[in-house]
Amino acid sequence: MNDRSLAGDLEAFHCQQLLLYRMYRLVLSIPEAPTAEGSVVIHEITRLLENATLAAEDRWVEPGLLDAAPTQGKAYLSWLKGLAREHRVFKHPYYMDFIRNHATREDVRAYVIQESVVDGRFDDLLAMMQVGSNGDAKMEIAANFWDEMGNGNSDQVHTYLFNKIFEVFDITDEELERGLTANALLSGNLAVLLCRYRHLYPEAVGFLGMTEWLVPDRFVQVVHAWNRLGLPDIGIVYHRLHITVDSQHAAGWFHNVVVPAASSETMRRGIARGTLLRLNSSARYLDERLPEAHAS
Amino acid sequence: MNDRSLAGDLEAFHCQQLLLYRMYRLVLSIPEAPTAEGSVVIHEITRLLENATLAAEDRWVEPGLLDAAPTQGKAYLSWLKGLAREHRVFKHPYYMDFIRNHATREDVRAYVIQESVVDGRFDDLLAMMQVGSNGDAKMEIAANFWDEMGNGNSDQVHTYLFNKIFEVFDITDEELERGLTANALLSGNLAVLLCRYRHLYPEAVGFLGMTEWLVPDRFVQVVHAWNRLGLPDIGIVYHRLHITVDSQHAAGWFHNVVVPAASSETMRRGIARGTLLRLNSSARYLDERLPEAHAS
Repeated sequence: MNDRSLAGDLEAFHCQQLLLYRMYRLVLSIPEAPTAEGSVVIHEITRLLENATLAAEDRWVEPGLLDAAPTQGKAYLSWLKGLAREHRVFKHPYYMDFIRNHATREDVRAYVIQESVVDGRFDDLLAMMQVGSNGDAKMEIAANFWDEMGNGNSDQVHTYLFNKIFEVFDITDEELERGLTANALLSGNLAVLLCRYRHLYPEAVGFLGMTEWLVPDRFVQVVHAWNRLGLPDIGIVYHRLHITVDSQHAAGWFHNVVVPAASSETMRRGIARGTLLRLNSSARYLDERLPEAHAS
Repeated sequence: MNDRSLAGDLEAFHCQQLLLYRMYRLVLSIPEAPTAEGSVVIHEITRLLENATLAAEDRWVEPGLLDAAPTQGKAYLSWLKGLAREHRVFKHPYYMDFIRNHATREDVRAYVIQESVVDGRFDDLLAMMQVGSNGDAKMEIAANFWDEMGNGNSDQVHTYLFNKIFEVFDITDEELERGLTANALLSGNLAVLLCRYRHLYPEAVGFLGMTEWLVPDRFVQVVHAWNRLGLPDIGIVYHRLHITVDSQHAAGWFHNVVVPAASSETMRRGIARGTLLRLNSSARYLDERLPEAHAS
């Protein structure tokens, strides 16, 4: 399956990512009944899927690009941001034109389903990635986590707010898993994969930092669509909030985690790799969401 | 080794727990160089060690005790506290007499080394255990985590304060690993083991809740010893803080996590099991810390 997926078989790619998604549910959900969590066979299969997923993503990274990273903190950060600004995912027409100007209620509903794989569990991703971190970096991740938890205010917890949108659209759990495309599953799986291993901590820094940096510009378009369609206000609190909050998070992340880390070769390469994994996978995901039929 | 440890071979027990401790370092520390994290063989060995560790601990739980748990929330909590109050670990002479009245500077130094396995990474334990939790329970764990992070104040981060004690006593990392007894390693390993698996979430609730509930009474004795010996004030901030903070944490934990969970059979049994794992392992650890020679 991994070989067929690498060779371009889209059905194998979907199976691969759906299987990994289910494996991750074992380590991300508290079960009511006994599960196969911890099983050696499950671990072995998970590792095969993870390695295949990373190897496939690395093929999208231009050879030699990671070696070109500047070694000085601020120059490194500018270089990273430049990679994003010159990438076709930046100001992608899916958000800038389709969501903003054309998306119907059904399109927005479909969009929310696909986004759930990352937004619906951002707190857990941060909690996992902070394990073993220290000093300013740990505090930055922890503060970000505490923001996700509504700074202690239950009705401001971000995953709670995000799930409010599901009520607006009456989306069930089954529909969720059935509706996820291979590239949406991949986005969520990559986030979990990079956050759950300590040796991929640099990649997680790049991946989540770039995710947050791209959010404000994207969510402005979602809020615009929401207003244009006259959808219930309760559903858009999450997006409105993240326009402000995520630009602060990205700034703090860049300043307190990325810039100081640039002095280390391992961190520099890993952060850049994680950034590119996010840019490339997000671009393919958005391309797929923008069929000719929708662009009408 | 696991069999020999179960049969009472103390050297095998020490090897077993030291090996598990090193396995856990792979998943708890951010490495500078490539590691074996994620390796299938490492995972298989870890699972053998974990299963042997849990099986050995379960032998200390009185048969039928878990079935006796009341099903009503408040009655259940009283029953849990009763288990602790009647346990010999409660008001254990190691704290109540030895640490308070007799411990020398060297004894306090040795005590701090042994305690590092839990206190030195309590934030990471909370972060791991909160994955997949929801609602009030998630908020309680998150608030506890944010307290550990000094509520955003870098010089109030608890692990930072704890490590200040290491400076007072000039304790190095090598000495740390060399100096840890099998039962101290076990205490730390049990905490990681219960927090890292989602199917052991109920056990983690019991284990960490009971750990926090026992802290204030214990740390009062440590502070007493510290003052008696005239040790530098910088080293005791952590303990003084936890006398207040942990009684609040334990109360919140019991009220917001334990009481509501008692309606579920799985949660009830798991929380009680985790509580007993903590009481029993802590008792054996404290017994060992109290040799005749020290009690003078």
